[in-house]
Amino acid sequence: MNIGVLGAGQLGRMLALAGYPLANRFTFLDTTGHPSAGIGDVMIDTDRKHLDSFLEQVDLVTYEFEHLPVSLVQAIEEVKPVYPSSEAIRVCQNRAEEKALFDRLGIPTPAYRLVEHADELETAARELGCPVVAKSVTEGYDGKGQAVLRDPAEAHDAWRAIGHPRLIVEAFVDFVREVSIIAVRGRDGEVVFYPMAENQHEDGILRYSIAPMPDLDDAVQQTADGYIRALLDELDYVGVLTLELFQTRDGGLLANEMAPRVHNSGHWSMDGAVTSQFENHLRAIQGLPLGDTAARLPTCMVNVIGREGDPAEILAIPDAHLHRYDKAERAGRKLAHVNLVAPTHAELLAKVRACAALLPDAPAPRFSFE
Amino acid sequence: MNIGVLGAGQLGRMLALAGYPLANRFTFLDTTGHPSAGIGDVMIDTDRKHLDSFLEQVDLVTYEFEHLPVSLVQAIEEVKPVYPSSEAIRVCQNRAEEKALFDRLGIPTPAYRLVEHADELETAARELGCPVVAKSVTEGYDGKGQAVLRDPAEAHDAWRAIGHPRLIVEAFVDFVREVSIIAVRGRDGEVVFYPMAENQHEDGILRYSIAPMPDLDDAVQQTADGYIRALLDELDYVGVLTLELFQTRDGGLLANEMAPRVHNSGHWSMDGAVTSQFENHLRAIQGLPLGDTAARLPTCMVNVIGREGDPAEILAIPDAHLHRYDKAERAGRKLAHVNLVAPTHAELLAKVRACAALLPDAPAPRFSFE
Repeated sequence: MNIGVLGAGQLGRMLALAGYPLANRFTFLDTTGHPSAGIGDVMIDTDRKHLDSFLEQVDLVTYEFEHLPVSLVQAIEEVKPVYPSSEAIRVCQNRAEEKALFDRLGIPTPAYRLVEHADELETAARELGCPVVAKSVTEGYDGKGQAVLRDPAEAHDAWRAIGHPRLIVEAFVDFVREVSIIAVRGRDGEVVFYPMAENQHEDGILRYSIAPMPDLDDAVQQTADGYIRALLDELDYVGVLTLELFQTRDGGLLANEMAPRVHNSGHWSMDGAVTSQFENHLRAIQGLPLGDTAARLPTCMVNVIGREGDPAEILAIPDAHLHRYDKAERAGRKLAHVNLVAPTHAELLAKVRACAALLPDAPAPRFSFE
Repeated sequence: MNIGVLGAGQLGRMLALAGYPLANRFTFLDTTGHPSAGIGDVMIDTDRKHLDSFLEQVDLVTYEFEHLPVSLVQAIEEVKPVYPSSEAIRVCQNRAEEKALFDRLGIPTPAYRLVEHADELETAARELGCPVVAKSVTEGYDGKGQAVLRDPAEAHDAWRAIGHPRLIVEAFVDFVREVSIIAVRGRDGEVVFYPMAENQHEDGILRYSIAPMPDLDDAVQQTADGYIRALLDELDYVGVLTLELFQTRDGGLLANEMAPRVHNSGHWSMDGAVTSQFENHLRAIQGLPLGDTAARLPTCMVNVIGREGDPAEILAIPDAHLHRYDKAERAGRKLAHVNLVAPTHAELLAKVRACAALLPDAPAPRFSFE
């Protein structure tokens, strides 16, 4: 089975590393001119001239990046199976569509408004009550195209700074923590759920994910399972889907956004779960039985951003699993992650602090249950 | 770090899969004309014309196959670091040298004789007491170049069948089980030991390895650790070394043979240990800290030989981890292995039986502790 992957970054790289043991081969289609997968066959196609030969080589197509032209993915679907489908991409790459889907399925979200003018942004900020977050409805990725308004008077500046014709404005949520749920749906409709992770972002970039959470009520996990199952079934989805949520003081969940792919907040599963999110995505899209998603032990994923630190020092931490992406250092760039595993959450937190101290640009880890 | 690997089979493939997360790149030198690694850069060099360009590409050299000309490895050592060294290859590819080393280090072995003529073989068979095993001193691999003599009168036929000028003749050992110990020595001399595995061979090919063993006395593990540490230190060895042994009725250990490389009886570590033998080999040869060798849970490696069965059925077994080598089916060929993991040995044995039933050519699993 030769699997075609749209995008050729670290997610594709890790998909391939999970897929070789299933006897999969990988062909990546990179449209950026800067592939970093470093594995498999990488076709650079900045002018859409190589799509046909890419499609000739592959048996089915998946993607590691959802900000692709929907028309491109629809065209591919005419020729080869694509999982997840173009419909998932269409919804996920547009925050207005995404919120409408959440609303339709009864998945609660922070209060929001759609605006198409700076004046409307100001009105929305006033109605929702500042601070608010304004985001372009499209092309959002890792905190880009966003602005926080502390006062409705900042609306015109924010509008210009974001520079998009349509924004979604969201009320700030007084959340206890950011969490995510990752689930996998097979071609036959079977769904499995990973234990939820608690995520710490810094400047819009994920820094730490810890799973399972020591203090998570089973009922909250079941609520999240219900939300993501509704999304999976509604979209007739095949593969890994990620839903990021806020958990509020009363334990409730509010959906933030979703990603139709393997996700940074699921990297802990590579060393902490029976089956990694990457293997389960590949199992799903090939129609193979899904693997057990249970966590083996408490695990924390630490992102390595900007600068790498000394791999030897990281590897000296017991039960530390380093996953480097073989990319050049650059401020804000995801270069690697470390999965730390420990028998208890207390021991895990000590390891996380030890690891963070070895990474030049790591913020202090802070978890809600400390 | 670009790592050069002599040999391009499944062991090299799995080394590469473990090394990409360390940001290693791999160049394989295949001298057989039939590489199967399917990953990294593979240079086919059946006429020794590409060695220089191979060496230009790599920072250090290791190997997945020890039956290489010692002179070749010595020549490579003049240019690039080679781990383990040519001395390890020289000793391991010659059973007479190997036994002499065991003797020198006080590592017990089955009684043996070296013979250079059919008449000497007959005498040895008489003195040791049949049955005996006769093996060519060189090029032994997976049971090839061996014969069992049930009677000294079979000596001339066996001599001709093996067709080598120098044989080692070994007394049959009334063993309870075959076991192996795998250890890793770093560049700084640090040594770590994996839990011993119990191995089941069939027609000279490994079929099952289970680790840890539920009934292994700590003292036996320590004895094995001591034997392999003596070998590692004596050879100033860097990397993974495997020592196969027989365990006798009184619990004692007799060394059978060693392999200067990652080993089939250590594949369980990919899913059953904190750090796999492949990652630890790469850590060792790069001078990185060695990883924890502890087993997470009872694990059994099931070799898939000759025919693959249905991957979907295998993956439906809970906590089954399939590792396919992407090779064509052929009688006696190692095509894949399955690592089965379970909370208890009783549950593990049930999974092993379920898995064996799915493999067309699998013999019945039999473990000494059942």
